[in-house]
This record gives sequence, C-alpha cells and structure tokens, in this order.
Amino acid sequence: MSDATPSLPAYTHVLAVDIGGTKVDAAVVSMAGEVVRESVTRRPTGRENDREAIARNVREAAEGALAAVPGLRVGAIGVGSAGPVDLPSRSVSPLNLPQAAGLPIDEVLSGLVDGPITLALDGTCIALAEHWRGSLRGCRNAMAIVVSTGVGGGFVLDGRPMGGASGNAGHLGQTFVRTIHDGDAVASTLEAVAAGPGTVAWARTQGWEGATGLDLAASYRAGDEIARAAVSRSATAVGQAIAAAATLCDLEAVAIAGGFSQVADDYVDQVRVAAEAAAVHAYARRCRIVGSGLDGDGPLLGAAALALGA
Amino acid sequence: MSDATPSLPAYTHVLAVDIGGTKVDAAVVSMAGEVVRESVTRRPTGRENDREAIARNVREAAEGALAAVPGLRVGAIGVGSAGPVDLPSRSVSPLNLPQAAGLPIDEVLSGLVDGPITLALDGTCIALAEHWRGSLRGCRNAMAIVVSTGVGGGFVLDGRPMGGASGNAGHLGQTFVRTIHDGDAVASTLEAVAAGPGTVAWARTQGWEGATGLDLAASYRAGDEIARAAVSRSATAVGQAIAAAATLCDLEAVAIAGGFSQVADDYVDQVRVAAEAAAVHAYARRCRIVGSGLDGDGPLLGAAALALGA
Repeated sequence: MSDATPSLPAYTHVLAVDIGGTKVDAAVVSMAGEVVRESVTRRPTGRENDREAIARNVREAAEGALAAVPGLRVGAIGVGSAGPVDLPSRSVSPLNLPQAAGLPIDEVLSGLVDGPITLALDGTCIALAEHWRGSLRGCRNAMAIVVSTGVGGGFVLDGRPMGGASGNAGHLGQTFVRTIHDGDAVASTLEAVAAGPGTVAWARTQGWEGATGLDLAASYRAGDEIARAAVSRSATAVGQAIAAAATLCDLEAVAIAGGFSQVADDYVDQVRVAAEAAAVHAYARRCRIVGSGLDGDGPLLGAAALALGA
Repeated sequence: MSDATPSLPAYTHVLAVDIGGTKVDAAVVSMAGEVVRESVTRRPTGRENDREAIARNVREAAEGALAAVPGLRVGAIGVGSAGPVDLPSRSVSPLNLPQAAGLPIDEVLSGLVDGPITLALDGTCIALAEHWRGSLRGCRNAMAIVVSTGVGGGFVLDGRPMGGASGNAGHLGQTFVRTIHDGDAVASTLEAVAAGPGTVAWARTQGWEGATGLDLAASYRAGDEIARAAVSRSATAVGQAIAAAATLCDLEAVAIAGGFSQVADDYVDQVRVAAEAAAVHAYARRCRIVGSGLDGDGPLLGAAALALGA
C-alpha cells in the first residue's frame, strides 16, 4: 500500500438518465447501486415532439431528479439512449425521435452537475447494469440482449463497456438467423423473427387470433399450440443469434432481458437449448445463457454504472 | 515531460512464432516491424504428427530463428496459433493437429528468451498485423478476416487485440449468411459458402470442370460464367457477414486477407458492394472494407505486434 492518503471521491451519488422513444427517466443513484426512489422523474419524449420539446423534457427530468434530493452530493452524469448514438460527436438520434436527430447531450445537460457526462447506447447500459448488479456479475466478456418490440443489446468486453467505433455495438437484431419455412431453411433478421411484433404477426398467419404479446403469453400458458410454436420460433432464433455472437466474440455469458423474454416461463431455457444446438465450437457452447438479474431499474442502473466507470 | 531518465527497453527485437496446421514459422522481428530475413525458420506440424513431434518442431523453429541472429537482443515472444486456443490455460488445440490438443505454449518455449510469452489466435494476430503495418493503421475498432480453406478472423477493439473469454473471438466463418437456392433465401454458414473449397465445390455442381481455387481464378480471368457466379457467391456471402459483424461490433474497417480473396482482382470490390447492400444501419454502412495491406509476413508480424503490445 502507498503511504499517501487515499483520495476519496468528493461525491456519493450520480445522476442517471435513460432516453427512450416514448419517455425519458432520470434518477439519482448511490455508488452502491441504489436508485434513490423519491428522485425518479419521468417526462415524455415521443415521435410527435419536436427537438426543442424533447431537449427540454430530458433536461427537466434530470433537474427534477436532482431537485428531489437536494442534500445528496451528485458528482457525475451517466446517459443511456436509444440508438443510434454517435459517441464521437456526443449526440444521439433515437430512431423513434426523428425530430430530435443529433441531440447534443452535453448541451442539453450542461451545468446540472459539477462533473463529467458519460454517454452510451441503452443496450450498452443494460450490459453494464447486468454486469454490475445483475446476472453478468463476475464476467469479463459478456453481452446483454433485450427482446422487446425490437431486439437490441450491448457488450462488456475485457471487463469494460464496448460500444465500437460510434457506440452502437450490440445490434444483434440485424444479424441473420435461420428459420424453417415450408421445409426450407430461410434466412431472416433476428428482429423480424424474434421480437414481439414479428412473433405475434407470425402466430396470426397461423390462425391464432390474439393481438399482443400479453395475449400470446396467456395463450402459451393455456397450452395453445400456435402460441407454443410462435414462442419456440422466437426463442430458437434468439438462441441461434446468441450462438453466432458467442462464436464471433467468444463470450462467457449472455443475459436476456426485455419484456417479450417473459412471454413464457421457459423462454430462456428454450433459448439455451437452441444456442447449444447451433454452436459449432466448444468455446461457444460454453457460453452461459441466463435471464436478467435486474428489475425495471436496469436502464437507470446501467447509466449510473457508466457514470461510475463500474 | 518528466525529468526522470526514460527507461529504454533492454531489447531491440522480439521472437514471433506462427503455429499452423501444416507448419510452424518462427522469426526475429525488429521493434519497427522488420522481419529479419535470415532468421525465418520453418518446421512441419501436420495431422499425422504426434504431440511430442509437434512440440519439438515448434521449439526447433523458435531455436532456429534465434540461433540465426545471435547478435540481436531478443526480449519477448509472441505466439499466434491456429484455433481453438485457450488463453486462460495458455494452451492451443489447432483443429488440424488433433494429436497436439492442449499444447502448453509456455512449456514448449520455456527458457528461450528472458522475457514474457504472449499468446493469441492466429486471426487476432492478423488483425494486429493489419493494425500495426497494414491497411487497418489508425483504426481503433476493426476486424481482419482471412478467406482461405476456411474463414477466420480477429478483432482489434478500442485499440487493443480482443480475443474474448478464451481467445477465440473472430470466427466469422461460423455465422449465418443468406444465399439464394432455386429462388429461395437459404441460410448457410459463411465458411461453407465462401471459403475456397465450398466455392470450388459449388462451381462443380454447376458444371464447371476445374478442381482448385487457382483453376477458378484462371476461369474467372477468362470470363467463364460459372466461375464468375461462384466468385460472386463467395464475395456476396463475405459482404453479408461483414455487414452483420459491423452491425454487431460497430467497426470502422474490415481488412480482407487470405489466399482465396485473391481469386479475382475485384473480389474486395464485390465484397464491399454486398456489405453496403446488406447493412441496415448507417453506422454499419460506414465501415470501410479494404484488402490486406500485408504480404506473406502477416502472421509473423502479428505475433511480433502481440509481443510488443503494438
């Protein structure tokens, strides 16, 4: 040990901001990963809002979170955003917020906290959150994927968040998988096959009469055969894509998050079986596939982890 | 600048070792990336050889390289190997050397040089070599792929070699691509579709009568339609897989190396067109696709870069 006095950080909390397509959340989070409940502040974003309104709402959410806990020392900001992001220019262009393309994060959040602002893709934040407090704890090379209305994700590689050249690494949804159609192996993107909307649409082509992912979950629990086939089709595609990602990036573990991954109790089990069947190399078969270890705070925890360098 | 005397490295050269399925090469390489020609030493490996013979030949190649240049100060060893490798146990198990599975590199090369031994997958070494002296210079997030009798590759991410959990990241050959078969989009692995043997076999199913990649190159130059279709099929698949990898890992550039990538002068151009067509996201379309910037010394240069931390 050095005999110098260790320099303690001058703050105890960070501000976490999660910018999504319909809303922005902000909260103050302790260095131990506790979201300070009374600080959680939400404002709308949305396709219909213009750039100025979105910028204002992002800032208001952040201000609201800080104002709720005036006694806490907040020393850094972490921001996760729906993609694409552009880390070199420190801006974000969420697909579902077309009027806010190129939103400059430093400008929007300037002066709120005396400390650095760190920015990443929301998928990278989920990977960081699972790595810090969820089911990827202890891993050095791992991925989190989010199966929801789309399929996204993010990486922790060599123990660090890995966003690639512009910060968008993790878009597993745009990789090809193999599905069987009339007996032939057909190539499709993972997102088209496995996300909620694509799965529901496929079930309807087979004669199922529900309309939403929740309907599909209910039919699945009731033993409906089309619902079971639809869930299997989604989980198989996710498993194949994970096998490909584990092969390409040599991952120890993949955590599966996102609302649609809860469509069936055994969804993750089905993904695991499919991934093991699809992996050619032993090192890729060793990749552990696990459910999310987080509750709904995942995006905020990930943004906090980013701010803390956790 | 510090006023302390800078500590100069105590050596001027490193030993580079490249372990392949048919032979092992070793050479002494300067810190500037010059392979000392008279040091280059080759010994056979091969499926037919037992573990002891392979271990002996690897060591003999290394000893031969060092013995050829006794006056040079060699201070570290870098080893690239055909995969799979297992970096945590510091051993290699090349698929084409089944009798040498688990070859312990530190033991095989012990005592030759007073310095560290660094080990990586051969694909990682090619990426490092392109990054150090080839067409990936200046990139922080890039991939090299090798199209040959198989399809492999490796990553430099965030400026560093990225091998993943066990060192095997880069196996692009086992990811799915889409090919058209009787009008249907069929999913196949990249290696099956795009490597030399698969391409030659496909051309033969179409009525072409050659037998090798060189034959195919000659037919291509002569304007043979089947040869042109076969090359296009390979390049299209490589382009699709690169688009998927660039999407997943957000790469600035991909360098294409390997003998079969020289089957046609415009092979890399065809890959580029296919990748641009297949990339959904703008950040992935920005990924530059370039030919190799190295000559045959690539694997040794990469192993040297590994030893140097270049």
